[in-house]
Amino acid sequence: MQLGMVGLGRMGGNMAERLRTAGHKVVGYDRDPKVSDTESLADLVGKLEAPRAVWVMVPAGAITDGVIDELADLLEAGDTVIDGGNSKWTCDTEHATQLAAKGINFADCGVSGGVWGQEFGYGLMAGGSPQIVEQLMPIFDALRPEGPREEGFVHAGGVGAGHYAKMVHNGIEYGLMQAYAEGFELLEASPVTHDKVAAIFKAWSRGTVVRSWLLELMVRALESDDDLSEIKGYADDSGEGRWTVEQGIENAVPMPVISAALFARFSSRQPDSPAMKAVAALRNQFGGHAVKAD
Amino acid sequence: MQLGMVGLGRMGGNMAERLRTAGHKVVGYDRDPKVSDTESLADLVGKLEAPRAVWVMVPAGAITDGVIDELADLLEAGDTVIDGGNSKWTCDTEHATQLAAKGINFADCGVSGGVWGQEFGYGLMAGGSPQIVEQLMPIFDALRPEGPREEGFVHAGGVGAGHYAKMVHNGIEYGLMQAYAEGFELLEASPVTHDKVAAIFKAWSRGTVVRSWLLELMVRALESDDDLSEIKGYADDSGEGRWTVEQGIENAVPMPVISAALFARFSSRQPDSPAMKAVAALRNQFGGHAVKAD
Amino acid sequence: MQLGMVGLGRMGGNMAERLRTAGHKVVGYDRDPKVSDTESLADLVGKLEAPRAVWVMVPAGAITDGVIDELADLLEAGDTVIDGGNSKWTCDTEHATQLAAKGINFADCGVSGGVWGQEFGYGLMAGGSPQIVEQLMPIFDALRPEGPREEGFVHAGGVGAGHYAKMVHNGIEYGLMQAYAEGFELLEASPVTHDKVAAIFKAWSRGTVVRSWLLELMVRALESDDDLSEIKGYADDSGEGRWTVEQGIENAVPMPVISAALFARFSSRQPDSPAMKAVAALRNQFGGHAVKAD
Amino acid sequence: MQLGMVGLGRMGGNMAERLRTAGHKVVGYDRDPKVSDTESLADLVGKLEAPRAVWVMVPAGAITDGVIDELADLLEAGDTVIDGGNSKWTCDTEHATQLAAKGINFADCGVSGGVWGQEFGYGLMAGGSPQIVEQLMPIFDALRPEGPREEGFVHAGGVGAGHYAKMVHNGIEYGLMQAYAEGFELLEASPVTHDKVAAIFKAWSRGTVVRSWLLELMVRALESDDDLSEIKGYADDSGEGRWTVEQGIENAVPMPVISAALFARFSSRQPDSPAMKAVAALRNQFGGHAVKAD
Repeated sequence: MQLGMVGLGRMGGNMAERLRTAGHKVVGYDRDPKVSDTESLADLVGKLEAPRAVWVMVPAGAITDGVIDELADLLEAGDTVIDGGNSKWTCDTEHATQLAAKGINFADCGVSGGVWGQEFGYGLMAGGSPQIVEQLMPIFDALRPEGPREEGFVHAGGVGAGHYAKMVHNGIEYGLMQAYAEGFELLEASPVTHDKVAAIFKAWSRGTVVRSWLLELMVRALESDDDLSEIKGYADDSGEGRWTVEQGIENAVPMPVISAALFARFSSRQPDSPAMKAVAALRNQFGGHAVKAD
Repeated sequence: MQLGMVGLGRMGGNMAERLRTAGHKVVGYDRDPKVSDTESLADLVGKLEAPRAVWVMVPAGAITDGVIDELADLLEAGDTVIDGGNSKWTCDTEHATQLAAKGINFADCGVSGGVWGQEFGYGLMAGGSPQIVEQLMPIFDALRPEGPREEGFVHAGGVGAGHYAKMVHNGIEYGLMQAYAEGFELLEASPVTHDKVAAIFKAWSRGTVVRSWLLELMVRALESDDDLSEIKGYADDSGEGRWTVEQGIENAVPMPVISAALFARFSSRQPDSPAMKAVAALRNQFGGHAVKAD
Repeated sequence: MQLGMVGLGRMGGNMAERLRTAGHKVVGYDRDPKVSDTESLADLVGKLEAPRAVWVMVPAGAITDGVIDELADLLEAGDTVIDGGNSKWTCDTEHATQLAAKGINFADCGVSGGVWGQEFGYGLMAGGSPQIVEQLMPIFDALRPEGPREEGFVHAGGVGAGHYAKMVHNGIEYGLMQAYAEGFELLEASPVTHDKVAAIFKAWSRGTVVRSWLLELMVRALESDDDLSEIKGYADDSGEGRWTVEQGIENAVPMPVISAALFARFSSRQPDSPAMKAVAALRNQFGGHAVKAD
Repeated sequence: MQLGMVGLGRMGGNMAERLRTAGHKVVGYDRDPKVSDTESLADLVGKLEAPRAVWVMVPAGAITDGVIDELADLLEAGDTVIDGGNSKWTCDTEHATQLAAKGINFADCGVSGGVWGQEFGYGLMAGGSPQIVEQLMPIFDALRPEGPREEGFVHAGGVGAGHYAKMVHNGIEYGLMQAYAEGFELLEASPVTHDKVAAIFKAWSRGTVVRSWLLELMVRALESDDDLSEIKGYADDSGEGRWTVEQGIENAVPMPVISAALFARFSSRQPDSPAMKAVAALRNQFGGHAVKAD
């Protein structure tokens, strides 16, 4: 089928290629004219036959909002917008309502797999009405990995459910990464194992309980830099981890592991910790323990 | 080659079978005469040709200690004992010293893979001298999964290093399991996703960042009981998680995720929490908040 | 000065008494006619001379909203509403805007001290314009403890700042309580100290680094029930702890301790933990570890 | 009574002064001849009348061991050694056994209060036999704060119980400090309160639920440096926090708050986090997220 793809970066660009390889016609637009197939969103819309489907794959928040605002003006009743970015699920409801006012359909789709998805397929979590999701199945089927559909795709519920499932996916991902990371640090720190860390991780690749795709990536990273000495211990976070913990709080779900992973990222970005200044100040106050000047 | 296998339970029994399938001669001993090939440890030792190799696969602690005490009496100089159970790495040094006094060799081997290892192979982490590990390679090669040796086996260092690597493996495993578990609880708790939890986990099987063997097991568990209503939220711990956190403390390695996973297990086994009695008591004291009678 | 007090429960009723003892004229209203001085909010407003000040001391959320809606209708330009309940600081802005439309002033005031405040005074954190806070100082001075004003009162900033400071106060309180609670549980669990727990807490009352008002309350609780056997380990939470962690997330502030204290309360209220069902299910899947039937 | 005091640093020196003020005869020894009353431990022992009591107040571990080794040689049957330092409670049993072999008595005493104890008295937690503790009561009574004995002193049990109680005290202290520290960091980070942080802490001094001695010290620290900009966020730990968490693990007591406080100290001392290198490496691997060069 035909699809407009807005945003041709690391994710959108690769997805467009995978779709084309599968035989779909993809018309792409990107702010960067060097990678864009069209001059403008209007141009993209003009090149698609109605009823159109336009997949938005741009940074969540203001940029996604702006693209959807424009599409609301350019598209017609019966067309469909899919937000495949990392939007917050609550934004989906707003976007769906905004577009529904013009008769435009909306679906959300969480997309996992990163830069590897073009080759191996993307894990997909969709939200929206059954009819719209059904219409889009050829696209979803081309994007997802080979194998049974239900092992790489889920229609998770109504509008927002796709991004909700993706949010939880990312929250879990934070916890998984931090678990490997703590194990890495201990293996590095211990005199028992510190010269065998990369080999130990590699040996976990098959047969063990901890084998996973993230483990394979860890092995890959250690093969090029066996103590990660070239990388700074600094980790950004993109929103889903925060929302997962917030949803834990909203639903009274204890989240000790996922929150700890999130806070470790916050800490990693602090050149100095205000909280630990307070601890140092208190120790100095009661015990006369020396403090380090900042 | 020939191998004595002491302990023919879920792990040792399956391992003996895998070794036999690979063409090794395995003489097994178990306290349970129904599954034992021999009448006694002495009998087992008598049926092996020198230099003998005896793999101990019994519960860590007193039972392993007892078996090694007996073997120290029964074996001869040049024989080798392998501890494949979940012993603490510090016990390995003691066992190695005890056996070395009689000229008996010792190696330790962490074994991962659970009940699936018989079919798919076990992830192995060995500790001991290069010569001894080299001698045992036919056994290790038969036990580990197919594929490159270094993806399912590591000689992690001297005596104890195998169990140390296995300890960290299990610590990571605790964190991974808890991450999936928190995600499960949130998906269940949220009205957005609570009727699609099993389908969402299944859809994560391919293409996603969180795909792993543990995820496949989670999918399997949810296929037979889609909200886990038949299982109580009660989790034992077998020692390695505790030792991992203790080693984190010893080496000043922050372990927020692995410790949180460990503490969640402790909490899961408490019918009532003494700490939360104290919190409830305090809230009652300052705020007149009602307490529940125990 | 004159003050209307809406809500005469454990907090409002005691505060009204403390204010009267200090010589202020307080007209109280409560839904419960047995404790109310007036028949209605309209009646209360009628009994105050303009410019009026009405302190709202009712549960946060819908009930506070309802009272402020009514007061917005009943009061006149130049009157002032103070929200002294545990409202979220973002609600203060909404209430201030709503009232400002009628020329009515608004201030928020976090109040700490619980049932002990009537006798010893309340710790106060106020938000609002300098003029309005200045006008209300006789009320704040009567409510706060004796001693220097700045040791029991702070004008923390504009509208909302008082409740923000109170929110952080309560977040800290969660962490403090949990720290004592964990210590209590360890002292109880250890054979070294388990028969001396109450005596040890009491001995910390003077001279130690951990002495505090909460410690005194803990001593008091242990004096009437030395192992807290009469109390269930079940702790509610009233919102400020959640908001504190959410604000930590919003501001990228690591909150390992306060979040852990919050999650411990969530756990304390679960008859069975869905997350730990998942952990038990996974252990059963890979290791054949027995699960407990639910 | 007479007392030998070994170690005249910040703690021992102040304690000797407090004891002298109370009318006791204290003979002090310190490695630093400038502060020592005697030339050697032998000299100190010679200046005391039998049965002697010698209080050891030196760093835990090797230094305490060395002093007790020497005292075991120098003292006579019927004399008593008190270890008032921050020794691990398990060392007490060893020291008691070592000294008992010569008929020398032993008691342990956890001492809290820091540099303020000389003026206000020290919180004391003693372990040992009832007879020995009874003999030493004049010393304990002089060291503890004024007020009822049981509010500043506890005989917590047999040998080791004093240090055990002190260990838990310090574990709690870690949690309390971190709770205030997280609150401090949030108040600093939030635009709502960041210019009022010192004033807010000061206002919590009276009437609030969070008032404590540590809060008073925090106020004191903020009075001299209102955003703690002169202090680096670096906090050592002296052992008791680690032992507390280890004891939690040993006794299956969940310790989310105290462990989080301990790990925050570990993190504060890392110029770069190995664990977060791993997280950054993984994010780079799957998502192509940029890493920072180290």
